[in-house]
Amino acid sequence: SEIKVAILTVSDTVSSGSGPDRRSHSMVQNGKSLITVFSSHKLVMHFISVVNSSSEKLGGATVVATAVVPDEVEKIKGILVKWTDIDRVNLILTLGGTGFTPRDVTPEATKSVIEKEAPGLAFVMLQESLKITPFAMLSRATAGIRGSTLIINMPGNPNAVAECMEALLPALKHALKQIKGDKREKHPRHV
Amino acid sequence: SEIKVAILTVSDTVSSGSGPDRRSHSMVQNGKSLITVFSSHKLVMHFISVVNSSSEKLGGATVVATAVVPDEVEKIKGILVKWTDIDRVNLILTLGGTGFTPRDVTPEATKSVIEKEAPGLAFVMLQESLKITPFAMLSRATAGIRGSTLIINMPGNPNAVAECMEALLPALKHALKQIKGDKREKHPRHV
Amino acid sequence: SEIKVAILTVSDTVSSGSGPDRRSHSMVQNGKSLITVFSSHKLVMHFISVVNSSSEKLGGATVVATAVVPDEVEKIKGILVKWTDIDRVNLILTLGGTGFTPRDVTPEATKSVIEKEAPGLAFVMLQESLKITPFAMLSRATAGIRGSTLIINMPGNPNAVAECMEALLPALKHALKQIKGDKREKHPRHV
Ligand code: NA
Repeated sequence: SEIKVAILTVSDTVSSGSGPDRRSHSMVQNGKSLITVFSSHKLVMHFISVVNSSSEKLGGATVVATAVVPDEVEKIKGILVKWTDIDRVNLILTLGGTGFTPRDVTPEATKSVIEKEAPGLAFVMLQESLKITPFAMLSRATAGIRGSTLIINMPGNPNAVAECMEALLPALKHALKQIKGDKREKHPRHV
Repeated sequence: SEIKVAILTVSDTVSSGSGPDRRSHSMVQNGKSLITVFSSHKLVMHFISVVNSSSEKLGGATVVATAVVPDEVEKIKGILVKWTDIDRVNLILTLGGTGFTPRDVTPEATKSVIEKEAPGLAFVMLQESLKITPFAMLSRATAGIRGSTLIINMPGNPNAVAECMEALLPALKHALKQIKGDKREKHPRHV
Repeated sequence: SEIKVAILTVSDTVSSGSGPDRRSHSMVQNGKSLITVFSSHKLVMHFISVVNSSSEKLGGATVVATAVVPDEVEKIKGILVKWTDIDRVNLILTLGGTGFTPRDVTPEATKSVIEKEAPGLAFVMLQESLKITPFAMLSRATAGIRGSTLIINMPGNPNAVAECMEALLPALKHALKQIKGDKREKHPRHV
């Protein structure tokens, strides 16, 4: 069955309809699939090649919901809980709010709703992003599981999102099958 | 004095006496020392060479206890507390239960009993495992200290366990001396 | 405006005026700037060159306060809260107490006062330190934000401190601007 993806843009400026973040807003509104989500961006060729060349393709992922909220813990939590507990999406990607400014609270909201941390996902995102820019060390992104939903914090910058997705793709399909409880998906070489 | 090691296999199928996890069960039952623990496996030659060539040998580590519990937080916690507070073993290695399936709760049980986190150990296990397979990012393994016992989550797969042990060995003996409070073991180049 | 830095040495032996840690004590007392702090040490040439060659210089950082406390959670917390909430320094560097001995509690004290974790900073310190010595895996250092102050645990060894500073420098100035809420400092390629 299709993987249901929801994308939450966390941004004061996007949610108020102004400012330079509008581009990432339109990004999540345009697409139905993960590939399409990125299709309006210069990195799409690179991103599609990464997806195509991966032996662990995500398969028919569909973006079933998108939303934009300001950088407020309670608003972020509210939509995360709705998408996990009621809409039962398989994967939530948050965009933005992971930095060091006083308004950046996406990781704190995420940690307050996840039941299990997935530190290895944050590890590979950091490891790969640091190969591109030392500013990646300022990401405070977290990842974890609530119910049968995987929640991953991504940066707000489209290029950086693509880099992080690329880092996760080799194991993301497998992760989502495991969360569903598919025992056959216990890979022989990890857990 | 000898390092006392206890090995806890966390697995529904092993604890019920069925399923493909039986191999790791027999692994922890056969041995008296860390080297012997792995002696029934193909990686033993590699593992022994790693141990032998290390300048920081673990020394006379002895496996003083092994147990198998199902993937249940309370059962995992119970044996971890017994081994730390009553049996006062120096090192507990848990095997399995660190993945993304609904039953995987070993890290949560471990976090609930440790008093101090040891994130650097999880870091090197991730870093080294990721060189072998991207599925390593799905490890949620944690490590930490309770009293004078070091508890480390390891994967359930024997090959992956050997890889993680190899990553930790260069500093593991030193870690265990520090936990015992041996001030002379303050290495000049770290903390 | 100048970045206000405070340096907290956490050490039973230094605070009691004896033992081999005295060197790091004099280190933090001698200087007014980050560069001067390290000027009595062999690594100063290396450290200055790192600072000079960095495209993201820290700028006019001034050490406005130093203190020494024993390895006790409440004493560490007390000075961290004073420096953040009352003195409103921009950056607190703690030195020592991040290892595995029973007395090492600096990370626990730090975690109890920070409002937001900054795991990427600990990541790069671990990643870079591990290139120099496997004993770096024994660092339990954490980093995070309280109010508008960044708190970073550093090792107690002067060489290791320089290595960690070098790892952080490319993004540290930017981090401190972000914490102050400077929106212009949102770098295009990270969060
Ligand atoms: Na790395």
